[in-house]
Amino acid sequence: MPIEVTRTLAKFLVTHKTAELPDAVRHEGARSLLNWVACAVGASRHATVKRALAALYDLSGPREATLLGRRERVDIFQAALLNGATSHTFDFDDTHLKTVIHPSGPVASAILALAERQPVSGRDFLHAFILGVEAECRIGLSVMPNHYDAGWHITATAGVFGAAAAVGRLLKLNEQQMVWALGTAATHACGIRETFGSMAKPLHPGIAARNGLLSALLAKKSFTSAEQGIEGRRGFAAVLSSQFDPLAITQGLGKTWEISANSYKPYACGVVIHPAIDGCIQLRNQHQLKLDDIARIDLKVHPLVLELTGRRTPKTGLEGKFSIYHSCAAAILLGEGGEAAYSDAIVRNSKVIRLRDQVTAVVLDGIQEDQVHITLTLKNGRVFEKYIEHCVGSIGNPMSDADLEAKCRLLCKGILPVAQTEKLMGLCWNVNKLKRVAEIARASVPAQSTGRTKAAKK
Amino acid sequence: MPIEVTRTLAKFLVTHKTAELPDAVRHEGARSLLNWVACAVGASRHATVKRALAALYDLSGPREATLLGRRERVDIFQAALLNGATSHTFDFDDTHLKTVIHPSGPVASAILALAERQPVSGRDFLHAFILGVEAECRIGLSVMPNHYDAGWHITATAGVFGAAAAVGRLLKLNEQQMVWALGTAATHACGIRETFGSMAKPLHPGIAARNGLLSALLAKKSFTSAEQGIEGRRGFAAVLSSQFDPLAITQGLGKTWEISANSYKPYACGVVIHPAIDGCIQLRNQHQLKLDDIARIDLKVHPLVLELTGRRTPKTGLEGKFSIYHSCAAAILLGEGGEAAYSDAIVRNSKVIRLRDQVTAVVLDGIQEDQVHITLTLKNGRVFEKYIEHCVGSIGNPMSDADLEAKCRLLCKGILPVAQTEKLMGLCWNVNKLKRVAEIARASVPAQSTGRTKAAKK
Repeated sequence: MPIEVTRTLAKFLVTHKTAELPDAVRHEGARSLLNWVACAVGASRHATVKRALAALYDLSGPREATLLGRRERVDIFQAALLNGATSHTFDFDDTHLKTVIHPSGPVASAILALAERQPVSGRDFLHAFILGVEAECRIGLSVMPNHYDAGWHITATAGVFGAAAAVGRLLKLNEQQMVWALGTAATHACGIRETFGSMAKPLHPGIAARNGLLSALLAKKSFTSAEQGIEGRRGFAAVLSSQFDPLAITQGLGKTWEISANSYKPYACGVVIHPAIDGCIQLRNQHQLKLDDIARIDLKVHPLVLELTGRRTPKTGLEGKFSIYHSCAAAILLGEGGEAAYSDAIVRNSKVIRLRDQVTAVVLDGIQEDQVHITLTLKNGRVFEKYIEHCVGSIGNPMSDADLEAKCRLLCKGILPVAQTEKLMGLCWNVNKLKRVAEIARASVPAQSTGRTKAAKK
Repeated sequence: MPIEVTRTLAKFLVTHKTAELPDAVRHEGARSLLNWVACAVGASRHATVKRALAALYDLSGPREATLLGRRERVDIFQAALLNGATSHTFDFDDTHLKTVIHPSGPVASAILALAERQPVSGRDFLHAFILGVEAECRIGLSVMPNHYDAGWHITATAGVFGAAAAVGRLLKLNEQQMVWALGTAATHACGIRETFGSMAKPLHPGIAARNGLLSALLAKKSFTSAEQGIEGRRGFAAVLSSQFDPLAITQGLGKTWEISANSYKPYACGVVIHPAIDGCIQLRNQHQLKLDDIARIDLKVHPLVLELTGRRTPKTGLEGKFSIYHSCAAAILLGEGGEAAYSDAIVRNSKVIRLRDQVTAVVLDGIQEDQVHITLTLKNGRVFEKYIEHCVGSIGNPMSDADLEAKCRLLCKGILPVAQTEKLMGLCWNVNKLKRVAEIARASVPAQSTGRTKAAKK
């Protein structure tokens, strides 16, 4: 007898009790939320967001929802779409490493928008968020790695289930309605990797959030859908993957929590470069190094570093994210690997280019993805060695709460006043106690003298 | 050197001249439009539409657009979504038989909505419509049959390209923007066959219309996307199909027109059942048969009949559309295969059920989709044979303009007064001469004493 995957998951989603969430899981939820809000606020001025908003602003319905970090208000569908896009624009959001899903974007964007239309407590929000991430990551696990290898952007395709599940929970769908919400989510699953390197890539978590929200709203009105949207013969798994492990979805529900395997990036680029940036920053700070002091940097790295980030001569900030050479030079100059290290100006800075050209990288057999060996040679002949065993942000060396706060402060700098950033972080840490979680969205909006919210800056 | 498929198509879409459309192609466009409007008006009271509207109505943006056959007005995204859904609700819309795409829904729903926001002449509308259908059907052809066989609902997955192309044409996108619009459409391609038999199936053309509209609106603001959304290594064709023929898209553009291969259904169910219904109605009328006279009906059919419509025990009208057995029994009872044959009551009629259980269908090697062999055995032992070579509505035996008008009158009956239906048909036939094509949308709205349009009947 085959497992009723969709129904089993739906039943779990509608019956799980808030009180049964372990405190550590709740805390990881708050960490994910803080990181997601920071990424969205940080990218809220990017052209990706501006162009999408220019296309959509005049078409908005009731302006009930916040665009994180901006003063315009839009309807809940647009907020789900645009906050999802913003939060992924810097490629700086969270990663569930087992699936390479960026879990928060699709789920949080959908339910925070909903929470501005109907009252939602922080406790219910956090629970729905964790359940949505659970659904999304388990469905992702059930089809990995084939699904991603085939060219699907799993954040989008699995994300829509997470959004539907979380919104459905907050809408108090019954089991049958949740089955339909998941079925309608399944038929919305989309997002291909051909878009990588264009604005359509960060749009994906937004698409997932908006479509998941729609799927749950339809189900609430008993709009029917497939009964076996996930496991059916023409369902999500069969159509979008060459392999499927249903037990990855149904086994141990409520006993293990995928959000506990979530990770956060200290640096605004692909994770494979992170060990080298980590090591360069440590060497710089330890020895008070300046760019001009350094003759060369020689790296021994994991093969994926050269495959994914071997660009010798990046010309734009975006290309810089795919250059291990630029990343090391910028880390020495700035002492950080945030978005500032990937501006067009830094990539074109002549001193950065001079050092970049003195960085070498060779593959070392047996080295892990979160490791690097660095040999740094000064112009005066001195040599420093650095071995990073687990770079910061990896599962073996996760970012601390304080690290996340520092990242958040950097991302919000120039957009929110310092005191407002601190307040926003406080709300995220205390999400479980908030009477109305919408407070978090509103706290991300920069104040202006007029206090008006309707003017669209396009 | 591989063909630049997406760019070649984009260039054609933005440069083709209206004057170069052959008259016969234009007329087929008008026939498709008339059939589409009639299907949407006819289904405008269905629960599928009511439930979706109940979920969405309060969230609408500027109420610039018409829901065909209804008095509520909604924003252009909702109109695209809901008119697309309504027009496919009875499964009575047009079929491009080579791909089994229902071409009008995704394209017309998107551009008619846009035409209520910005002035669009009938001539430009018809041109954009035909170009959209061309893009959609060619992209469909390039991945058939593997794509459909894998479980994709091709009306949705190819439809989104058609909507993006047609809207992009009306927005006067340049070539690069059209490439991006097609790329963003590619990453929106979704819709799985597991939903067949539920409300989520007719939602598909609506999803395609809405997402295609979004893709083109984003591109108009230079929101970037993949350069090779169709043919790229991780593009639509590679990810959503195991085979791809790029020449099906690029060869003979502007010389042949896929809308010329469009067909219209005389019966409100999947085309694969049509030969059997056609044959049953002919036998019934020829021999004045009644339900009680018949002992059994034995069919020899195309394999798709059993794959798509093999439901033995349908319980609702909608499920009845996916039952070859019910369809034959209802055709004998009513002498027609319109929506009346698929009411819940007819599906639950005990005499229909009794005959339905005496219908058998087996696959015959080499039989075509528009063919069937019927052996009908009476209780008195007499046996009738019927071979349908080309069922009515097939390419070999198309519905005439008068047939389409008769179908339209049946569909609009009870929703629009007779004179209004005639006026609506006149506008469709003369679409090419209309100063403002939005007139067609408005002419589909039933008048009421108050003339108010804002009251949502939910």
